[in-house]
Amino acid sequence: MITSVGNARIKRVIALKEKAKLRRDENVFVIEGVRMFQEAPESHINELYLTEEFERTSDEMTRKKIKQCRQNQRTVVEIVTRQVFDKMSATVTPQGILGIVDQPQYNIEDLLKTAAPMLLIVENIQDPGNLGTIFRTAEGAGVDGIIMSKETVDLYNPKTIRSTMGSIYRVPYLITEDLKEGILTLKNEGIEVFAAHLSGNDIYDGISFRGACAFLIGNEGNGLSDEIAALASAKIKIPMQGQVESLNAAIAAALLMYEARRQRGV
Amino acid sequence: MITSVGNARIKRVIALKEKAKLRRDENVFVIEGVRMFQEAPESHINELYLTEEFERTSDEMTRKKIKQCRQNQRTVVEIVTRQVFDKMSATVTPQGILGIVDQPQYNIEDLLKTAAPMLLIVENIQDPGNLGTIFRTAEGAGVDGIIMSKETVDLYNPKTIRSTMGSIYRVPYLITEDLKEGILTLKNEGIEVFAAHLSGNDIYDGISFRGACAFLIGNEGNGLSDEIAALASAKIKIPMQGQVESLNAAIAAALLMYEARRQRGV
Repeated sequence: MITSVGNARIKRVIALKEKAKLRRDENVFVIEGVRMFQEAPESHINELYLTEEFERTSDEMTRKKIKQCRQNQRTVVEIVTRQVFDKMSATVTPQGILGIVDQPQYNIEDLLKTAAPMLLIVENIQDPGNLGTIFRTAEGAGVDGIIMSKETVDLYNPKTIRSTMGSIYRVPYLITEDLKEGILTLKNEGIEVFAAHLSGNDIYDGISFRGACAFLIGNEGNGLSDEIAALASAKIKIPMQGQVESLNAAIAAALLMYEARRQRGV
Repeated sequence: MITSVGNARIKRVIALKEKAKLRRDENVFVIEGVRMFQEAPESHINELYLTEEFERTSDEMTRKKIKQCRQNQRTVVEIVTRQVFDKMSATVTPQGILGIVDQPQYNIEDLLKTAAPMLLIVENIQDPGNLGTIFRTAEGAGVDGIIMSKETVDLYNPKTIRSTMGSIYRVPYLITEDLKEGILTLKNEGIEVFAAHLSGNDIYDGISFRGACAFLIGNEGNGLSDEIAALASAKIKIPMQGQVESLNAAIAAALLMYEARRQRGV
């Protein structure tokens, strides 16, 4: 049992929780709570920290997974005191379970497995909740993959992770250094790239998304950059009544993805 | 110029910002930032607080509206020091303008003005950002009104207000003590009430929303209560692929409202 917050492992967990650069360097992220633990593929869990109370009071499925983690060769499982756990936790009411898991690694082929992929391309989304919600909604709509510019808010931020509700493990994604090049690659693969844009000429629900397609979604405050929007095959518009100037980025993404789903009849 | 945070007016603003009950008792709320000021109907602004710097550096349109507020009979306009303003502000980087405005007052007739109204009924949404986003999206989709249970997160919470992006001034709404009775009233008016429900039989985009209709949206964690869901004319489902258990409440609301908009061809 770990009883001191001075323990080297505990200090490292806290650093990983707080520092995006360290997470990037080590290709891991921190998950917290029973739900994210249940959703994590066992083969990705490197370290697991829990309180005695959590283990004693958790349900059968959770206890079984903890046992599997103890038995496998790769996961370090440590019991920590309540006090230590509270220091590690990013939440107001810590549940008592926290893990260090591997970041999923994908390449472009993982996003292009189906005959007519539906992709999402995200430029510089800044709100962790928005990015997490986009992942969650994308899985629901059957999106084949998400491509993010590297200026997008850190996907491995605990708040983003939490708001994906587990979809981070299941939707293939890439974070690209050069979004422009990424878009050109997709176009070369025959994917039509539609930019959600306030100055779009065509209403989104009048266009066919049955073929291979990707939706470009811009930043909350500024929308897409001109440079990126110019690469799109077409600019499309979501109509707005009243005096609304724009929709929330996650809402706009959801409307496009689910319109594609509707057209594809799945 | 107000130079002391001990000033009675300033203390009252801070209390109004922090206390939902006080806002309810006085039928006002606090707005902050140039955008919310520009969006506020002048006839609703009771008090306006700004820094000298804000007034000096703001654009012509904003200065003109400040001038109108000074000239009308109802708005108290006060210059405060930067220090005082920082104490009043709810934001990390205060812009230097803050107002006390009247809560809009509506009755049921205001929500039923069109031949085939589209309404939203919200049960116990808890996240201020979600509720604000619902308002913003509702205005964009052309919703005629929103009805909220009284257990819904406070609409006049500064975070909710901010995320409505001004739609709070433009979408008629009611906060009801008895949501059940509210739903029955709507049904008596000939409005079909559709519950967004995980156990719905019908996929949402296979149903006609061309007639008078209302969408029931439940709480983030628990969805709709059984009691409320049972009142619906029909339960409808948004299909989800992968292992997604539910969608974010604002996303679900957006998909239904925009599907109705699509069908109505507006």
